[in-house]
Amino acid sequence: MVYITRKENFCAAHKLHRKEWSQEKNLEVFGKCANPNWHGHNYSLFVTVKGEVNPQTGFVMNISELSEIVQKFVIEKLDHKNINMDVDFMQNKMASTENLIIGIWEQLEKPITEKNCKLHYIKLQETEKNFVEYYGNVEL
Amino acid sequence: MVYITRKENFCAAHKLHRKEWSQEKNLEVFGKCANPNWHGHNYSLFVTVKGEVNPQTGFVMNISELSEIVQKFVIEKLDHKNINMDVDFMQNKMASTENLIIGIWEQLEKPITEKNCKLHYIKLQETEKNFVEYYGNVEL
Amino acid sequence: MVYITRKENFCAAHKLHRKEWSQEKNLEVFGKCANPNWHGHNYSLFVTVKGEVNPQTGFVMNISELSEIVQKFVIEKLDHKNINMDVDFMQNKMASTENLIIGIWEQLEKPITEKNCKLHYIKLQETEKNFVEYYGNVEL
Amino acid sequence: MVYITRKENFCAAHKLHRKEWSQEKNLEVFGKCANPNWHGHNYSLFVTVKGEVNPQTGFVMNISELSEIVQKFVIEKLDHKNINMDVDFMQNKMASTENLIIGIWEQLEKPITEKNCKLHYIKLQETEKNFVEYYGNVEL
Amino acid sequence: MVYITRKENFCAAHKLHRKEWSQEKNLEVFGKCANPNWHGHNYSLFVTVKGEVNPQTGFVMNISELSEIVQKFVIEKLDHKNINMDVDFMQNKMASTENLIIGIWEQLEKPITEKNCKLHYIKLQETEKNFVEYYGNVEL
Amino acid sequence: MVYITRKENFCAAHKLHRKEWSQEKNLEVFGKCANPNWHGHNYSLFVTVKGEVNPQTGFVMNISELSEIVQKFVIEKLDHKNINMDVDFMQNKMASTENLIIGIWEQLEKPITEKNCKLHYIKLQETEKNFVEYYGNVEL
Repeated sequence: MVYITRKENFCAAHKLHRKEWSQEKNLEVFGKCANPNWHGHNYSLFVTVKGEVNPQTGFVMNISELSEIVQKFVIEKLDHKNINMDVDFMQNKMASTENLIIGIWEQLEKPITEKNCKLHYIKLQETEKNFVEYYGNVEL
Repeated sequence: MVYITRKENFCAAHKLHRKEWSQEKNLEVFGKCANPNWHGHNYSLFVTVKGEVNPQTGFVMNISELSEIVQKFVIEKLDHKNINMDVDFMQNKMASTENLIIGIWEQLEKPITEKNCKLHYIKLQETEKNFVEYYGNVEL
Repeated sequence: MVYITRKENFCAAHKLHRKEWSQEKNLEVFGKCANPNWHGHNYSLFVTVKGEVNPQTGFVMNISELSEIVQKFVIEKLDHKNINMDVDFMQNKMASTENLIIGIWEQLEKPITEKNCKLHYIKLQETEKNFVEYYGNVEL
Repeated sequence: MVYITRKENFCAAHKLHRKEWSQEKNLEVFGKCANPNWHGHNYSLFVTVKGEVNPQTGFVMNISELSEIVQKFVIEKLDHKNINMDVDFMQNKMASTENLIIGIWEQLEKPITEKNCKLHYIKLQETEKNFVEYYGNVEL
Repeated sequence: MVYITRKENFCAAHKLHRKEWSQEKNLEVFGKCANPNWHGHNYSLFVTVKGEVNPQTGFVMNISELSEIVQKFVIEKLDHKNINMDVDFMQNKMASTENLIIGIWEQLEKPITEKNCKLHYIKLQETEKNFVEYYGNVEL
Repeated sequence: MVYITRKENFCAAHKLHRKEWSQEKNLEVFGKCANPNWHGHNYSLFVTVKGEVNPQTGFVMNISELSEIVQKFVIEKLDHKNINMDVDFMQNKMASTENLIIGIWEQLEKPITEKNCKLHYIKLQETEKNFVEYYGNVEL
């Protein structure tokens, strides 16, 4: 069992904000992430797939195909977008990295399974100092 | 003459867009940077000051003071903000990295000169692959 | 179950040295790390907390609070200090990265548990080429 | 149980190519990695060993010894070499990162076990965007 | 006058070798870089253009156009290639980074000038520890 | 004229402290860098040499020789040392990065000139956020 990982990048705007809360409450809970006019990040996304090595190709999965899947199902929807406003799978959710990584997992699981591979792990880096990780329903 | 540099980071939203142009023209010129609902970046800012070494302190300038100046005159105005909407010194300008670096220079030149140092150079990194540099009115 | 990580940095001096050994024995075992007059590093500390996502905030834990805990219980005690001489929780221990990461875990476990989260993992990077990791009493 | 990791680098040439396939088939499956005249990479190798902390030294394993083992059993065989042509343990295998990481594991397992430590994990980074990981026969 | 820089990557094989020298002489001068069966690197190329800021676009040059020029005139010729064997502009030259950066400059100068911009500087990084820089015929 | 750069690393302890000042004054001027029991850093040193390309070798200077010079004249004196106590060329000077970079220049200028090359530039990185640069007596 070998694990292969592809990194892709996207740039997006977002804010952390609950409509039913006052701006004071939003600022208290979310700090400067609640800025009404948005802010943004260069996100780095690491997608890890696990599987047996194919003896013909030496591959778990062709990493170009993995890149294409991540581009098509995730990056095209997020890159140079507003996460709160432009992204179908983030509607009616807080645009936190935690919710974003779960949403990204849900985009990727089916197309990767259809390639007879198993999505194992996602890491989503928001800043140099902050990142989140997700293993689907599995707890390490 | 020694050169000292301080790096500071900020996260901001922006878009590249001219009101007097159609959305088609904006997309043609600015590509995905013209997304109407904004996008954003983790910017890294490098500020370089040059001067003689003070024999008492061994410093060109106390780098903590340099950090405080950059924080007060630049980072507080840009971090977790919308460059087009929230930043006084970017009003009525295209929010390109080129215009942003010139605006940042204008914020920093006076407070650094007041510390008897000389602002030499600024580098502004927008993504892993794109950055701009500025030496004020000097051409290298 | 989502995992969130905060990175914090500190700069510290240390040496690897056993008083009951001769300087020859110390040099043989610890090499240049046994230099009597100390040496030092820029350490990077990665602290990972796991938990369910709060539906109100979209957070496992507010990462600003996590940062404050790491600052208060670890970074203030280690940054710009001598690990052998200045750090209460490292008294009478070899100042190796292995012992340091266990000591850091012991500082963080209680305050993170009091926030109803679970400390999952710590990574401590000493140089570009060397790092250690710890999961508490759990073996992966 | 603490985990220690040493990073080492090597530069090597390789190609992905099956002799029994036509060049068209090779290009279709392996893309530009099938270039007949080779290409190459700066590889980064991360080797993780786990064990109890020795109370005399504070070490799981002396990281200088770990570095020497990785140098002797892996880096000397791969650095500034052609993976397909020059490396004994890669003969008659596709020179993919997946096969390479399994081969590296087989070089390292015995000498690390002889030091009474346990090889836990290897990461092999081929480019900024692509890496593979291996835990031996263990599945995470 | 603002300076903008685009980074692009390529992976290539090469060796340092003079046919008219014995293999002993080649090894003495070029060390492990003389390995007859090639080795390779992940190269990073930084291309810096200088110019006045266009008041309509806020750009010195559209960085997407700069990227396309670098892709077309340099990366397509070098990526996943053998520098000694596959690259037209490196024929009959030592495949050193010094000669490579001069060759790259010669590919880029004309198409950038045709965009009414000025090629200012190129940096070519071969490994984490080694890079070369070139300003054309200008000496800093 | 091509510029080649070699990066080398060293780990060292230091403090910023004037004996003739009270500890209060030292803390006021130098902040936490005045900690009496030292602290330390992972320093990265970039040494740039300029020259014409030798048509036989394709080199400005053999980068292995440049590495050996930097190792012998600088790294061996600084790595795993105390800059204030152990380093001959830093005696009776403040152990600031500014003074350190001037001292390093003085170590390197003669042996590089003896190789018929010209030392052009040094960069000394102390932390991720702070670095200094020096061109000898030349002002850019």
